[in-house]
Amino acid sequence: MTLTPSWVKALEPSGPQGHELLKQERARSNIPVEKLSEFLFTKEAINRKHRVLQVLRSEKVFDKSQNYFAGRIDRFETALARAKKLRQLKVEHNWSLEDFHTAGDLISEPGPYGLHESMFLITLREQGTPEQHELFFKKADNYEIIGCYAQTELGHGSNVRGLETTATWNAEDKTFTIHSPYLTASKWWIGSLGRTANYAVVMAQLIIDDKSYGPHPFVVQIRDLKSHEPLENIHIGDIGPKFGYNTMDNGFLLFNKVKVPHVNMLARFSRVDPSTNKYVRPSSPSLVYGTLTFVRSTIVFQSGSVLARGVTIAIRYCAIRRQFQDRDVQEWERGENQVLNYTMVQIRLLPLLAATFALHFTGRSMMQLYQMNQKKMNRRGSQAGPTQRGAGPEETHSGSELLADLHATSCGLKSLASSVAAEGLEMCRRACGGHGYSSFSGIGPWYSDYLPTTTWEGDNYMLTQQVARYLLKSARSVLKGETPNNDTTVILSDFLSRVDMGAAFDIIGKDEDLVAAFAWRTAYLTFEALRHRDKDKKAWNDLLVDFYRLSKAHSQYLVVKNFYEALHSTPTTHELDHDTLEVMQKLFRLYALHTLEQESSEFYTSGATTVRQIILARTNAVMKLLKEIRPHAVRLVDAWDFPDWQLDSSLGRSDGKVYEDLFFRASELNPLNAITVDPYPDNDVLFKKDMTQRLKSKL
Amino acid sequence: MTLTPSWVKALEPSGPQGHELLKQERARSNIPVEKLSEFLFTKEAINRKHRVLQVLRSEKVFDKSQNYFAGRIDRFETALARAKKLRQLKVEHNWSLEDFHTAGDLISEPGPYGLHESMFLITLREQGTPEQHELFFKKADNYEIIGCYAQTELGHGSNVRGLETTATWNAEDKTFTIHSPYLTASKWWIGSLGRTANYAVVMAQLIIDDKSYGPHPFVVQIRDLKSHEPLENIHIGDIGPKFGYNTMDNGFLLFNKVKVPHVNMLARFSRVDPSTNKYVRPSSPSLVYGTLTFVRSTIVFQSGSVLARGVTIAIRYCAIRRQFQDRDVQEWERGENQVLNYTMVQIRLLPLLAATFALHFTGRSMMQLYQMNQKKMNRRGSQAGPTQRGAGPEETHSGSELLADLHATSCGLKSLASSVAAEGLEMCRRACGGHGYSSFSGIGPWYSDYLPTTTWEGDNYMLTQQVARYLLKSARSVLKGETPNNDTTVILSDFLSRVDMGAAFDIIGKDEDLVAAFAWRTAYLTFEALRHRDKDKKAWNDLLVDFYRLSKAHSQYLVVKNFYEALHSTPTTHELDHDTLEVMQKLFRLYALHTLEQESSEFYTSGATTVRQIILARTNAVMKLLKEIRPHAVRLVDAWDFPDWQLDSSLGRSDGKVYEDLFFRASELNPLNAITVDPYPDNDVLFKKDMTQRLKSKL
Repeated sequence: MTLTPSWVKALEPSGPQGHELLKQERARSNIPVEKLSEFLFTKEAINRKHRVLQVLRSEKVFDKSQNYFAGRIDRFETALARAKKLRQLKVEHNWSLEDFHTAGDLISEPGPYGLHESMFLITLREQGTPEQHELFFKKADNYEIIGCYAQTELGHGSNVRGLETTATWNAEDKTFTIHSPYLTASKWWIGSLGRTANYAVVMAQLIIDDKSYGPHPFVVQIRDLKSHEPLENIHIGDIGPKFGYNTMDNGFLLFNKVKVPHVNMLARFSRVDPSTNKYVRPSSPSLVYGTLTFVRSTIVFQSGSVLARGVTIAIRYCAIRRQFQDRDVQEWERGENQVLNYTMVQIRLLPLLAATFALHFTGRSMMQLYQMNQKKMNRRGSQAGPTQRGAGPEETHSGSELLADLHATSCGLKSLASSVAAEGLEMCRRACGGHGYSSFSGIGPWYSDYLPTTTWEGDNYMLTQQVARYLLKSARSVLKGETPNNDTTVILSDFLSRVDMGAAFDIIGKDEDLVAAFAWRTAYLTFEALRHRDKDKKAWNDLLVDFYRLSKAHSQYLVVKNFYEALHSTPTTHELDHDTLEVMQKLFRLYALHTLEQESSEFYTSGATTVRQIILARTNAVMKLLKEIRPHAVRLVDAWDFPDWQLDSSLGRSDGKVYEDLFFRASELNPLNAITVDPYPDNDVLFKKDMTQRLKSKL
Repeated sequence: MTLTPSWVKALEPSGPQGHELLKQERARSNIPVEKLSEFLFTKEAINRKHRVLQVLRSEKVFDKSQNYFAGRIDRFETALARAKKLRQLKVEHNWSLEDFHTAGDLISEPGPYGLHESMFLITLREQGTPEQHELFFKKADNYEIIGCYAQTELGHGSNVRGLETTATWNAEDKTFTIHSPYLTASKWWIGSLGRTANYAVVMAQLIIDDKSYGPHPFVVQIRDLKSHEPLENIHIGDIGPKFGYNTMDNGFLLFNKVKVPHVNMLARFSRVDPSTNKYVRPSSPSLVYGTLTFVRSTIVFQSGSVLARGVTIAIRYCAIRRQFQDRDVQEWERGENQVLNYTMVQIRLLPLLAATFALHFTGRSMMQLYQMNQKKMNRRGSQAGPTQRGAGPEETHSGSELLADLHATSCGLKSLASSVAAEGLEMCRRACGGHGYSSFSGIGPWYSDYLPTTTWEGDNYMLTQQVARYLLKSARSVLKGETPNNDTTVILSDFLSRVDMGAAFDIIGKDEDLVAAFAWRTAYLTFEALRHRDKDKKAWNDLLVDFYRLSKAHSQYLVVKNFYEALHSTPTTHELDHDTLEVMQKLFRLYALHTLEQESSEFYTSGATTVRQIILARTNAVMKLLKEIRPHAVRLVDAWDFPDWQLDSSLGRSDGKVYEDLFFRASELNPLNAITVDPYPDNDVLFKKDMTQRLKSKL
């Protein structure tokens, strides 16, 4: 590193200092930050966060100061060290699962045990028999074996039915032969597989007597438990660098006719009877995609907080960054304007701030819906748990209306929420101007790691077909005159009953009308799509774009509705003071009106609003809301309560020392500054000096 | 690395092979690829590309196989080696500037000489006196000194007037003192500065007798020419890792009262008279932002090709990737469907394919406009060249109408074109599904390196104010009854003359009406904005969002118009065969109608179209165009003629060996596979084996 000279150390940023500006911001609003945090997350969760943070900060391995500088191998090495330490701390401090997850959130990077601790353990537990629990789950839970979940292949992602890896039943010796017949059968993208795992749950086409029974889960040992070398006829490796997620060893895996015993097929739901050599079907096929619904609900739940990190950073920095004067202010003495005062910055950031809360409340109610459903299913005495991650409903026979609703809701919201979060993060990064491009902004790396969420657990475009399918089905039942039995069928039949009278919603004056306008648009698009499909007999493929729009419309309706309901339910009106509630209602309006204006063509094509209303919403209502919310922006992001340690961002520091921190990281932490180059092209010597100690990692 | 076993090497991808699928694609269209390439780029440019490529491929240092794996320092080291070699090759082969730039395009990574070879040399040449040419330019041109262009500071980017670095004139010894009074005065983001440059052109506030004369350029030596250590009272370093652009050493720079002689202030336009100690004003202030206009025009010109890389990769891969069957096709035997056949994929990729051509033709005409203007200025006998990069027109008095038009056009198109290219690349990446996330897709790294283009040379949001200002001014002149003298005033007065009759454009039936609808919308938004500003006296800040929309509308009109005109000019109708021209016209319609539909609310608010027309455009016209263009997709991207070496993408290979290449890179090139971990949490040993040779770089 270069040594920072003392005359540099004596320098301060010019003008009002960052901490002064943030102080001013905080003084302009009376939102009770702590109370709002507790309302959003509960006091218990906040205390847990700060308790766990204490522990992490005291361990050197979790020091983040080299995160943004290190190359792939060093980052992976550090991530592995952290994963090990985290497990040790869990045992040492007797952490609950919640404590453990909180630690993961604070560390904020994927780790090599990631898939062991999630899908591997879950699958063994949910899909294993008691015998298999004894054999595999216990060891895994105890980290005697380390596993991963091997489903996706080089040639097949979304389409699980198309997997090429085979598991052929050998009647003679009661074993299965796991085999990769093609290069495209190679397992690919499998988290924790590349370098870490020695076991895998492998999804493979079960074949008995030359007949295929579709994908089933098999437990396969893949590496030697001592040498950690791949076993014979197994080829494994890391798949290489990615746009993000580089602390994780996503891997590939190929089998050359590897035999595993009968007990290695996870047999809770379906199995091969070794005496008859026959396939035994799952008793309750309708219950097999609970896990996926759970995972998607979790994505919806997390999306608000994922986005809020970027919004926190951008809003704080835009309150500190000053650039140009207001054109209509003539006196130069007034100094430069805070960037957050420009309406072009507000229109990008404040609707996203509103979205963080909209998604938070939606996620909370999505989780409640999931839990309610689980309870109902348990009451019905079903013993079956979730299975077969990735299997869409096309592959299963839906046995339950309620589950169908939950499934569609989770698909649509997962698609919408993760897209809003990902695109919002990039919007936040750009709103930070040039410095947003620096890794020290903390947004870019976070965005890059989050991006796969838009693809996994159902590609965000693909998923919209599921939603459309469900809505078309609901519309058919309404048209048949069946009594509406859930929110979807209610809004569809409401629409039918009013369609001849027209909508006439007062979207600017009444919040409930705003929600109704979103419902109306969904219903309109549903019946339009139904007409195309059932009456005009359009090909499914020709309707995919319409289905995408429909799903988006429906999910936006759900978000708006959930936000509205959250603000009108008793806990909220009880726990929040009047002023905070008022700001929240403004955020609701901003989110809804801004979304409506972005999608305006569907609103007036459907007759939900008039053209005039949209113009008023854009030019008056939204602009007015921006002005009213602006003073509360910093306190509102403060309420998300991200510790600086978690954000790891120069721009988002809660104390406003933006420029000091950018400078410190560049001047004091940057290893590139430990090299001195020879700059002349005729000289083949590149580095005159290299003090980077690239020899070894420091762990 | 792991050794790939022979049984793995024997494996092939399943189903129809990639090369077969691409062959089929190419057989389905009769577009003459080579001829189209020549039409787009000229035969000369294509020959040059392939000649230069030959040279690069034969040099080991340009081998790309470790690009995606290497960490920051290794990448920088390689980039420096490449920059040196490139300079050596230029001398050795007596390359023209075009050859040299072609080599840079093929290598496709920013290099440490980047700013030396562009802004440093240009500024010395354009703003130096003959004496300064002798003193600085000659040495720089000869690489005896290596420079950079130091304008942006930690606290100031867009607002050049706000720069804090000072250059104070010392009358007693006829020197300037360069000083950084605050931490925020630190130069920041300066390309080639961090490790490479030993000279800088420093933009600093000129101060004479306590009076500030605004930012001016000073040549300052910053490192010792032998030891390459920073000179006394100068603190320099690399600013750290970024979202992309990591082969470049963007740097920081602080001065502690460093003296430079009088001759170091670049004095072609303005200077300090050393005898009177007075400031001498530039003779022709109206000509000072030519360089910026040129740089922006270049960005517009490159945007089509930037985007085309992603489109090429995504379209080829989506022709090879097969997933699911068409739902309406019942026979499983027909196999899985090419992803490119799904309308949801087509609607994402084909309008982007159309955009590559739209931007290409627009960029070409933008460059022509620039050159025409240069010629006119030269004819007028002006000797003045461009100066002061970054200075917006706010700071200067516009002396020329033509320049104002050129300036506004370049601002608006730079903003639109680079946003379309950046967002389009990300769209392409996601259209590749999971594999798009792998660095081997080649899109992610390219996108990350391109992103700063949306911020530099005028932030894409900020720039829209310049366009709006120009349009408002034009509208005022039209309202005053002045005779229209350029396209902008023509469309504004056309609008006024027809506004009471209404538009009635046949956007689906007539291409010229489609263009007219875009003009109409621009004119409508211009007069709306004018009304808000001049009549309603709205604050400038309250209109920024409207201005942004207005600028976007105007620039979209320009792109549509340029695309239309390119297809109706003589060279095109002459050089392209009938079938190709027809496909091009379909691409024009797709681009225009898809854009129109995306922005539909402005089209019917303005009365340019009816709601019914938009619905027809979306549901009929666009969907039909997708079907018609689909068979030509692969040949159309082939015409962009990117060598595989340049794309460096597994997914975009012209021979379709997508899966083989992904696998090869992961299994044979990935250094992470040279480590063997210890996977157990209780064991603090992380790596049992480390064969990565992280000890030294290989150059």
